[in-house]
Amino acid sequence: MSISPLAPDHIAALPPLDGVRLCAVPAGIRYPGRDDLMLASFAEGTTVAGVLTRSATASAPVEWCRHHLRGGLARALIVNSGNANAFTGRTGQTDCSRTGEAVAAALGCAPGHVFIASTGVIGERLPMERLLNAIPALESGLAGDQWQAAARAIMTTDTFPKTATLRTRIGDREVRINGFAKGSGMIEPDMATMLAFLVTDANLPASVLQELLNDGNRDSFNAITVDSDTSTSDTCLLFATGTADHAILDCHRDPALSAFARDLGRLMRDLAIQVVRDGEGASKLIEITVENAENETAARVIAKSIANSPLVKTAMAGEDANWGRIVMAVGKSGEAVDRDRLGIEIGGVPITRNGAVVEGYREEQVSRHLAQQEIRIQVDVGVGTGRSTVWTCDLTHGYISINADYRS
Amino acid sequence: MSISPLAPDHIAALPPLDGVRLCAVPAGIRYPGRDDLMLASFAEGTTVAGVLTRSATASAPVEWCRHHLRGGLARALIVNSGNANAFTGRTGQTDCSRTGEAVAAALGCAPGHVFIASTGVIGERLPMERLLNAIPALESGLAGDQWQAAARAIMTTDTFPKTATLRTRIGDREVRINGFAKGSGMIEPDMATMLAFLVTDANLPASVLQELLNDGNRDSFNAITVDSDTSTSDTCLLFATGTADHAILDCHRDPALSAFARDLGRLMRDLAIQVVRDGEGASKLIEITVENAENETAARVIAKSIANSPLVKTAMAGEDANWGRIVMAVGKSGEAVDRDRLGIEIGGVPITRNGAVVEGYREEQVSRHLAQQEIRIQVDVGVGTGRSTVWTCDLTHGYISINADYRS
Repeated sequence: MSISPLAPDHIAALPPLDGVRLCAVPAGIRYPGRDDLMLASFAEGTTVAGVLTRSATASAPVEWCRHHLRGGLARALIVNSGNANAFTGRTGQTDCSRTGEAVAAALGCAPGHVFIASTGVIGERLPMERLLNAIPALESGLAGDQWQAAARAIMTTDTFPKTATLRTRIGDREVRINGFAKGSGMIEPDMATMLAFLVTDANLPASVLQELLNDGNRDSFNAITVDSDTSTSDTCLLFATGTADHAILDCHRDPALSAFARDLGRLMRDLAIQVVRDGEGASKLIEITVENAENETAARVIAKSIANSPLVKTAMAGEDANWGRIVMAVGKSGEAVDRDRLGIEIGGVPITRNGAVVEGYREEQVSRHLAQQEIRIQVDVGVGTGRSTVWTCDLTHGYISINADYRS
Repeated sequence: MSISPLAPDHIAALPPLDGVRLCAVPAGIRYPGRDDLMLASFAEGTTVAGVLTRSATASAPVEWCRHHLRGGLARALIVNSGNANAFTGRTGQTDCSRTGEAVAAALGCAPGHVFIASTGVIGERLPMERLLNAIPALESGLAGDQWQAAARAIMTTDTFPKTATLRTRIGDREVRINGFAKGSGMIEPDMATMLAFLVTDANLPASVLQELLNDGNRDSFNAITVDSDTSTSDTCLLFATGTADHAILDCHRDPALSAFARDLGRLMRDLAIQVVRDGEGASKLIEITVENAENETAARVIAKSIANSPLVKTAMAGEDANWGRIVMAVGKSGEAVDRDRLGIEIGGVPITRNGAVVEGYREEQVSRHLAQQEIRIQVDVGVGTGRSTVWTCDLTHGYISINADYRS
């Protein structure tokens, strides 16, 4: 499979982080000849927060994480690709327990401190023997410089690994955040993403981490959609090793955390947009901003209605300035809009204002913008002050080819 | 454009109906060399009922119909294809008034008794001169045997005209219902369809007609989806000429109306499924039944979640028995489901029961069913007694080709 034309120019190299070691191996879960199982180990005292899919058919690993997040402590993360361990009933739960116990035994920690994620086919049992057999090699290979290998091991239909790293401050001390994610199809995360793992050396209690993660998630993973299909496996975990040397903080609203919160949000948005850039068959990245809706939630619903419209997405694929389809998608959203104040801009070119085409509108200007890889759509619905931005990709023959054949 | 592989073997020939005359002409609205404007005239005393889109960006003709349906009387119907007269502001309203007045003058009736519908491009002004110039030819060509021509004149990306006719009874007297519809893309009607016109010689007040139409609509046009996109122009009108000679009835629950109500529902479902059969790019007709949901509404939401899932639709296109995608679509619906009682059948072959794959499940049996043109999916969500059936089609390269190019 060729790399998405929307892939970033550079794949960020994730630097080592005190207290974190990783390893990836080919366990033969499903894909031959590539790493498909990764393990990360964390220093004692590492705290953890997570957001998980709200799907009513959530996978066994999602339920495992939901349960063990209550403890707020983590020592390991194990992730396989190729099999989601979803809709596998009691067997799936047992397989999670066995995995957790095996990793715990190898690392000398409690099973409840082992976090688990799986991505791939739904409804098939994990090949447990292969998975368990791979654990010794994983454990012995753990090293501080294996972030890239880990990011690659969790890919399914992804065409590039999604990584991001930054330095920020808590109070006057520098801390670091590393993150990696996967996702390409079945992407309209509902409270989380497909799989995203964030690690910081910050020293923060799990309750604070959780609030920061919820805030960051709202305008990153929860603001993207590839195909309107919400996964059974969406999982985003944030680990904090606590090795950074800053003051102890116990409230997420502490002013000393403002830079960290902002930068965590930036890093999450970076990863989320990389997921869209690798949307199945994508040839365009589309940013949709809705303004002046009744409130922020209404703006999000309208923006998602546009972002999920097959007719808008195919028009973008065809570089067709067919803005009537945006009018349609706004109208069907179910939210309050004032048709006679509706304003639409594409690529900064005003098309309609106050419910009518602007005088002197020239389609060529919009067509030039649509020929680019990155498209901006701005919609003013004229009823309030709510605002929201979402990101999506176009709908192309590539999506059909990938999904009419690939068993994901 | 080639005819949909799902087209019915025979296109029903609509017989003349007392009091109804029709004509179609090429007015040059948008498509060259074909009829694109039709007029129907109705006997004095004809009553009318309608269901219209709930889109907040409804077209000018939809608003015109909504206003004049209050009077309950109709003498004419004029419909053009190629231009939706949607998002055309005050000008669009004026154009409706001018159309209504011109037809009223030609037929000698009140403008408020002229019903108007338009379908095609959104956001462009109707070419009024061409439309008005065509009215004399339309009026002079009116004849009782022009149903087929009328059904063809309202087509856009449709590959065949959708017609249906039946005889039924009110009390002991025979009455007839003729209907025709159009629609292929931008199809997830919300209280109505793209365009559907039903005519009966029954003698019923508008209030009774309206109740019958609402009932029939629920499990016909409101139960279909091609691409989850709700049109700005959805319009379904039911006209009753009153020429049949049965007892006067003033309540839609009168037992004498039970056969008529049932048969009206049948005819509407027939037309609605024809719209799906002509879904853009469709190669499979898919019937999805959800059982044992919390209530009927919840069953409908879950069935639509499956029917609108791009991943389910592409799996069907690829004849891939990837039932994990059905699990995913059930899970994301937001409705109550019991994952551990979930049962899925495709083509009558049980795949899962009580949340687990059935013993001895053989994928080949499902694959054989998926190779057919008509696919049945049955899902038991195990929480109540609600039941609903919806119809959709698969998502193919054809949909992308049609919509990345065609300006509809």
